[in-house]
Amino acid sequence: MEGDGIQVERRDEIAALNSSADEVSHLALDIGGTLIKMVYFSSDSDWPVDDEGKRSSKEKGSKNCNFVNGRLHFMKFETRKINDCLQFISSKQLHHYGGWHTEAPVDCKNIIKATGGGAFKFADLFKEKLEISLDKVEEMDSLVAGANFLLKAVDREAFTYMDGEKEYLQIDHNDLYPYLLVNIGSGVSMIKVDGDGVYERVSGTSIGGGTFWGLGKLLTKCKSFDELLELSHQGNNRVIDMLVGDIYGGMDYSKIGLSSTAIASSFGKAISENKEIEDYRPEDVARSLLRMISNNIGQISYLNALRFGLKRIFFGGFFIRGHAYTMDTIAVAVNFWSKGEAKAMFLRHEGFLGVMGAFMSYPNNGLDHLMSKQLVEQLPKSACCPKHEARSPLLGDLTENGSIECSVQLCL
Amino acid sequence: MEGDGIQVERRDEIAALNSSADEVSHLALDIGGTLIKMVYFSSDSDWPVDDEGKRSSKEKGSKNCNFVNGRLHFMKFETRKINDCLQFISSKQLHHYGGWHTEAPVDCKNIIKATGGGAFKFADLFKEKLEISLDKVEEMDSLVAGANFLLKAVDREAFTYMDGEKEYLQIDHNDLYPYLLVNIGSGVSMIKVDGDGVYERVSGTSIGGGTFWGLGKLLTKCKSFDELLELSHQGNNRVIDMLVGDIYGGMDYSKIGLSSTAIASSFGKAISENKEIEDYRPEDVARSLLRMISNNIGQISYLNALRFGLKRIFFGGFFIRGHAYTMDTIAVAVNFWSKGEAKAMFLRHEGFLGVMGAFMSYPNNGLDHLMSKQLVEQLPKSACCPKHEARSPLLGDLTENGSIECSVQLCL
Repeated sequence: MEGDGIQVERRDEIAALNSSADEVSHLALDIGGTLIKMVYFSSDSDWPVDDEGKRSSKEKGSKNCNFVNGRLHFMKFETRKINDCLQFISSKQLHHYGGWHTEAPVDCKNIIKATGGGAFKFADLFKEKLEISLDKVEEMDSLVAGANFLLKAVDREAFTYMDGEKEYLQIDHNDLYPYLLVNIGSGVSMIKVDGDGVYERVSGTSIGGGTFWGLGKLLTKCKSFDELLELSHQGNNRVIDMLVGDIYGGMDYSKIGLSSTAIASSFGKAISENKEIEDYRPEDVARSLLRMISNNIGQISYLNALRFGLKRIFFGGFFIRGHAYTMDTIAVAVNFWSKGEAKAMFLRHEGFLGVMGAFMSYPNNGLDHLMSKQLVEQLPKSACCPKHEARSPLLGDLTENGSIECSVQLCL
Repeated sequence: MEGDGIQVERRDEIAALNSSADEVSHLALDIGGTLIKMVYFSSDSDWPVDDEGKRSSKEKGSKNCNFVNGRLHFMKFETRKINDCLQFISSKQLHHYGGWHTEAPVDCKNIIKATGGGAFKFADLFKEKLEISLDKVEEMDSLVAGANFLLKAVDREAFTYMDGEKEYLQIDHNDLYPYLLVNIGSGVSMIKVDGDGVYERVSGTSIGGGTFWGLGKLLTKCKSFDELLELSHQGNNRVIDMLVGDIYGGMDYSKIGLSSTAIASSFGKAISENKEIEDYRPEDVARSLLRMISNNIGQISYLNALRFGLKRIFFGGFFIRGHAYTMDTIAVAVNFWSKGEAKAMFLRHEGFLGVMGAFMSYPNNGLDHLMSKQLVEQLPKSACCPKHEARSPLLGDLTENGSIECSVQLCL
């Protein structure tokens, strides 16, 4: 859902990343309509790889379970630039590290967990270019597994947002379900989650991140998703939206609870003005578009939560990007339509739910084991990360590429 | 919600209309954000008016209740061209005919029932230019009264639409309530109707007719709403929308019931193509826009119907304009989201619900009396209209300006 300026896929940066000689394992991909998300784990560099990228013999046959310090790497690429992703995987020799099992047949080492529609669409391309077989993980399975893991394993994963204030939530593991998961990618999926692997996709809308960026690109000539978001921050939607006050001569429509500044018709003011698109400031167009889409997602989400009696709505997906105004609009929409009874909640690792789920689907992924025994919080502070937050191994906003220090339990 | 080509407000046409010397009564207005809707009744021309436009003395003091043959006239003007509306009212001397009561004080004769936000916004303008006081009728009250009247009094008012087939519905008057009324004007109101005057506005969306026409105007440079609708009829949304198959390599996402041709992300394909708005055919842009908006309205309407256990959803408002593709998209959306359990229904007099309600609010409007006694169907065929449909005095699609022969009961 975003453009040129943000990915770490330029050749010089890729070269810099390649200079790391860390042991790499558990590469997983989520190939969506707009973005490819990638997660892989690299242990600290005491596990050398040989020239062919295979794990060296010193670990072979080891059956011990140990904590291994390392990093979870999160990256994203634009789907339309999938060759950059392939090049990165190839140069980093990531394709040799689908899973931990060094003794698996050679064929299995070139199998990588992948989710999203692109796992189907680009399967042949991965096979042809990298000799990788994509082991497809169902998209909704992945989203739910990723969200469940993050909500359980990561302290302060979820937060509410209102009037510029973040409030982190303490989620009781025993009182997590049921909840509504709203994943805003190119399109939007709404999933009722009742437990580990127990869920139903109950709704969705085609008016999602792809609509914001697609329509926004056509209307403003912006070159990137981030540029469009930034523009929206500076804009004023009242220039183009038809407000209740525009219809009611500046008055509220108080009988039905609509203030004069409520939007009666998104982009409705464009009807009555003899202006062309060039006559509007791109900032104002971007703002109206963002409000229209965020409002709509908030409203449909609330209606679905209400339908199933769900108290919690978690919003994830790369559309949000930690963008204050987006979160604020969604939160206000949920608050407005629920008359204050429901609250929108956001996930710090919003964009990586699906790919985390794919990562979790490796049989011995280390993280899963940590989660099930809740070992995360028992780790010594030195083994946990980041340094300022001992109890949260995945703390830190992950809307951009990055990596996080982490310990995983490996049984080899 | 529409543009230049469709109103009968040009001076020559207004002059032609003025040549009619019919007695005029019960003018009512619905002044929305985009359109002004007008209804008035003219009796056949045996009730002359004097030079000042007052009802002549021969009816004064008459207290008989009689059926009077005449016509209900339906007109619309663009709100931004309100002066054309004022000119029409003035030249037709309609402002002297707020109601039937010829013996009312002169002041009262210049009081006209008006609904919509413009009844507030333009109140001073009507006072200043025409010495008319607008007697404001609450907007939702009007919509509900108009819809209830039409559904009860007019045979075959409602119909379903699917795969190009209209199916008219026989509504049992005793089994009309409750229903969801979805009025698609510039914005969209969703009203749960439980009886005459018993209703609640339960939801709405700012993504309505004003969004279609406003965004459409900016994206295609179309000059009128009708032109945009016509374009959409010829377009192909698959050019710009990101389909499930675009993400899944041509495959269905069958596990969650999405076919490869389902829209995953409206306008999402514009992300990945190096095209500017000029590179797309306006037809395709219009089609994507119409599907996006119609789908969304259908979905939110269904969710609200479900929430209140309402089996019937009636769609009205000028957005629809009897346009087959719009109705088809709404109907398909309701069918899809309800898994076939709910059906979208449309009203033949879709655009005039609010103004009919305002018209009905005159204390002795004749129509109300007809309705309450269900006299419509007892009228002799010759007094009823149109000629090919004896039992439906208001039959005929009223998406354009027009008039309908009708009998009303007058008690003077």
